[in-house]
Amino acid sequence: MHLGTIQLDDGTTAVVVRSSESEAAVIPGYRDLDDLLERHVNGSSWRGEAESALHDGQRVSLHEVSWLPPVRRPRKILGVALNNSANPDRIISGPESPAMFVKPSSSLVGCGQPIRLRPEMGRVHPEPELAVVVGREGADIPASSALEHVFGYTVFNDLTSPTMRGEDTFHYRAIHPDPDAADGIRYVESWVSYPARYKGSDTFGPMGPWVVDAGEVPDPHDLRITCTHDDRLVTDDNTMNLRFSVAEVVSYASSYMSLEPGDVIAMGTALKKSARGGAVQNVDLNRLRGRIDVSIDGIGTLWNPVEAR
Amino acid sequence: MHLGTIQLDDGTTAVVVRSSESEAAVIPGYRDLDDLLERHVNGSSWRGEAESALHDGQRVSLHEVSWLPPVRRPRKILGVALNNSANPDRIISGPESPAMFVKPSSSLVGCGQPIRLRPEMGRVHPEPELAVVVGREGADIPASSALEHVFGYTVFNDLTSPTMRGEDTFHYRAIHPDPDAADGIRYVESWVSYPARYKGSDTFGPMGPWVVDAGEVPDPHDLRITCTHDDRLVTDDNTMNLRFSVAEVVSYASSYMSLEPGDVIAMGTALKKSARGGAVQNVDLNRLRGRIDVSIDGIGTLWNPVEAR
Repeated sequence: MHLGTIQLDDGTTAVVVRSSESEAAVIPGYRDLDDLLERHVNGSSWRGEAESALHDGQRVSLHEVSWLPPVRRPRKILGVALNNSANPDRIISGPESPAMFVKPSSSLVGCGQPIRLRPEMGRVHPEPELAVVVGREGADIPASSALEHVFGYTVFNDLTSPTMRGEDTFHYRAIHPDPDAADGIRYVESWVSYPARYKGSDTFGPMGPWVVDAGEVPDPHDLRITCTHDDRLVTDDNTMNLRFSVAEVVSYASSYMSLEPGDVIAMGTALKKSARGGAVQNVDLNRLRGRIDVSIDGIGTLWNPVEAR
Repeated sequence: MHLGTIQLDDGTTAVVVRSSESEAAVIPGYRDLDDLLERHVNGSSWRGEAESALHDGQRVSLHEVSWLPPVRRPRKILGVALNNSANPDRIISGPESPAMFVKPSSSLVGCGQPIRLRPEMGRVHPEPELAVVVGREGADIPASSALEHVFGYTVFNDLTSPTMRGEDTFHYRAIHPDPDAADGIRYVESWVSYPARYKGSDTFGPMGPWVVDAGEVPDPHDLRITCTHDDRLVTDDNTMNLRFSVAEVVSYASSYMSLEPGDVIAMGTALKKSARGGAVQNVDLNRLRGRIDVSIDGIGTLWNPVEAR
């Protein structure tokens, strides 16, 4: 099933869509999918209510629907960096385990909602990604049972500003203990970068339109994923190129950060160029505006217009 | 007033403590301070209920209280990096505006709750900080009215693992558009680091014991802040050494990321060594264990035992 959250009258509601249908059905009593996940922590008892909604729930045409981020306020949105094997010559010293950053939930927008940019954000490019939505909490989850904690999959556009990344990257002397002197220190020249602005500004997290439950995605590592700007195909990749798998990432992340229902993990950029396309870095949305689409076979298409803030 | 969240019987509740008292009073009807902030977005109507609680509410002795993080699930926890002027020779190229990262709410623990570490986290040191709790939502807040969005102040220990920071720092070739070729790219050697693990692992965010409402903190930039490991004073600093002020940081952050009630901004490490102390980097909690305290005059003392996970 495809589950999401929409604007309805003056409020919001969780909805369910069967993939073949053209309407969303309201699941009564849940203000969003967060609410449904929170109240069904064991992950399967929601099915009866969703089936009932499909049978006789209030319906909204998909042509008229106002999508919100399917999970509106995830407690945590993790992004996995440098997780694509399609372009290995970029890495001089790269991750031996999944490298992660946190995006704030205030950065999320739903399908169709505008990405809003302003000049001081500099270059802003799309990053097409498969994202995992956590259904069941856990810490220290073994890879062998990691997929049991996955509620479903959605489409994520991990917008990134390399201009702000540059501004928030610093060369400095890190303080380390001096091994030769008790309480002594020594300086070690280091680089550090801070991602809050360049990954987490408002509207930098388009997600949706819905979450497809894991039972409908037999293999999350065999999905074509494309990014289209206006009518031009920019990237054409497949989730088989992810270096660390969903099970590996869920397991690894949970060994440091407890996972909670509704948490989102964006799996890393599907950056392989299309035959005719450029790199995602060539698509400067702050200059080009237009409309940006990310599609994943079997999941859906996330699209957003870009406008000035 | 001092407001916080405690464990009570099988649940949790918001409480209020007058600074001179030895007991916390239950504010009925609020499961935590998040709940109170969410339902009083204009920031002052909670006072009547807190006054009533002080007058005739259920009381819990501070000797027996089990503190939780005062805001249990902030939607966003921002940390400001490199924001202390006490040690400027560390910076080779440093921030011209506040550099920020996001910590997940799953990293929070309350006063008295254990910091839990394990060998693969490597070195882990304390970072004593003043933190701001947002009371009123806002975006693009001018510095001149930024303090109106501050609900209050608390004590934050921004635990950091330089070992994990090193593991999650990479040297790579960033892809930039080629200015001389349409859709062409060029590689630019860059460094990037990802803070989710080294700043955001479980228990890396001790906060509390309570939030002091802003009305009781006439000048947030004239507060002594100390860090003590077991009986030894490590750092002895003052918030006057913050490079970017609370108003500047709140304003700047809100111009990229909308602020919401309950959001926390940790203002940056008060890292000035005490006369007898070492650097915070010498206090490797993963090796030393013991107890770590952060105290801010007029706010309170946050203490946590350190144990093996």
